Amino acid sequence: MRILALDSSSLVASAAIVEDDILMAEYTINYKKTHSQTLLPMVDEIVKMTELDLHTIDAIAISRGPGSFTGLRIGSATVKGLGLVLEKPIVAVPTTAMMAFNFWGSQDKLIVPILDARRNQVYAGVYCFQDKGMDTVLEDSVMEIEKLVFYVDKEAQGKKVIFLGDGVPVYKEKIKETIISPYQFAPAHMNRQRAGSLGVLAQYYYREGKIESAADHKPEYLRMSQAERERKEKEAKQ
Amino acid sequence: MRILALDSSSLVASAAIVEDDILMAEYTINYKKTHSQTLLPMVDEIVKMTELDLHTIDAIAISRGPGSFTGLRIGSATVKGLGLVLEKPIVAVPTTAMMAFNFWGSQDKLIVPILDARRNQVYAGVYCFQDKGMDTVLEDSVMEIEKLVFYVDKEAQGKKVIFLGDGVPVYKEKIKETIISPYQFAPAHMNRQRAGSLGVLAQYYYREGKIESAADHKPEYLRMSQAERERKEKEAKQ
Repeated sequence: MRILALDSSSLVASAAIVEDDILMAEYTINYKKTHSQTLLPMVDEIVKMTELDLHTIDAIAISRGPGSFTGLRIGSATVKGLGLVLEKPIVAVPTTAMMAFNFWGSQDKLIVPILDARRNQVYAGVYCFQDKGMDTVLEDSVMEIEKLVFYVDKEAQGKKVIFLGDGVPVYKEKIKETIISPYQFAPAHMNRQRAGSLGVLAQYYYREGKIESAADHKPEYLRMSQAERERKEKEAKQ
Repeated sequence: MRILALDSSSLVASAAIVEDDILMAEYTINYKKTHSQTLLPMVDEIVKMTELDLHTIDAIAISRGPGSFTGLRIGSATVKGLGLVLEKPIVAVPTTAMMAFNFWGSQDKLIVPILDARRNQVYAGVYCFQDKGMDTVLEDSVMEIEKLVFYVDKEAQGKKVIFLGDGVPVYKEKIKETIISPYQFAPAHMNRQRAGSLGVLAQYYYREGKIESAADHKPEYLRMSQAERERKEKEAKQ
């Protein structure tokens, strides 16, 4: 099974081609350039390097959100375009699940990807690897960092907690101050989105029939955008 | 600390830029093209994408071997050239150690990277993550696959064994037939060389002063090349 995987749910842009047990190509940039400048050139680059005929892929995987609104829209628009032209299904994977999947093999720990959602909030999920796969302890949610740490401590029961994601540099000190469980922050090669992890996880989704059409695919924002929120607040005041 | 990391120890070619806790860029290709065609263009690509001034890096990391003779020579020549021009030290990391480092966080398992060395042999190392870091159980060695499995079973004592590397597709059936310990084969996003893992591990080496000059750097082949072996055999017959 051959999957083209794309992620642009945060500052990171990442593209990968996974074929069964082989990561044919993976290209990740974590830099200030906007995704509209990086994502498609990156896909083009890895497709050329691996001499891939895009018509031979089985599906296109995307991190469906939560994450940066603009990033998610660019990712979504890109896979919808590719999916429509190539007539391939979309596999939409929660951003936090694909991030947790970086830690395949780390059993009996709580893996907690956190994305900075601004306004003292994080997008987060909580996952735990068992012998047979990855369990979702908490589906992707948006909440205050203090509430997340409280929840994690309650669930951990002595298990070590691993935090990753762009929420870590923002909330590191708050986590340190409030957490009771043993914990670690993930190192650089595992602490952000990787399209390789997405592509492998998407193989499982695809086999389970969790696919959608390019026309139907939508990002999962989990929260209203700033513009929507401000309009609602304005309307409420009138 | 800013590290440029390169790996070409097998069919995989991989380049990364790691800055402290951030993987700024990582680019990996696992495809039949030769490294002389891929490695420098990949470095050039990520340097441009991140607008990196190469003079600002602290060191250049390379997987020193074992691995493919030609691959190691291309990698070594590339970092020697870059190191001489940029006047930066080289951090040479054993190939098996950088591969095991993909599994950071997987405590109390034996991580066993194996590279196909042909002639029923593998290059292999055995590693185990403890609370405080990665222990080397067996330094990179060359041996028959049966001997490796026997050794691993003796050391595992109930621990799960994770195999990764391009030796897996070659020796999978032999491993399955002979191993007694519980085991798994690593999934695609973790089962080959990653320059990102190399870059992060190289930060530790650099801090411990494990550096060498570009002029002094040499690959570690662990075994004679086919040409050397055949010459020796010929000489012995005379």
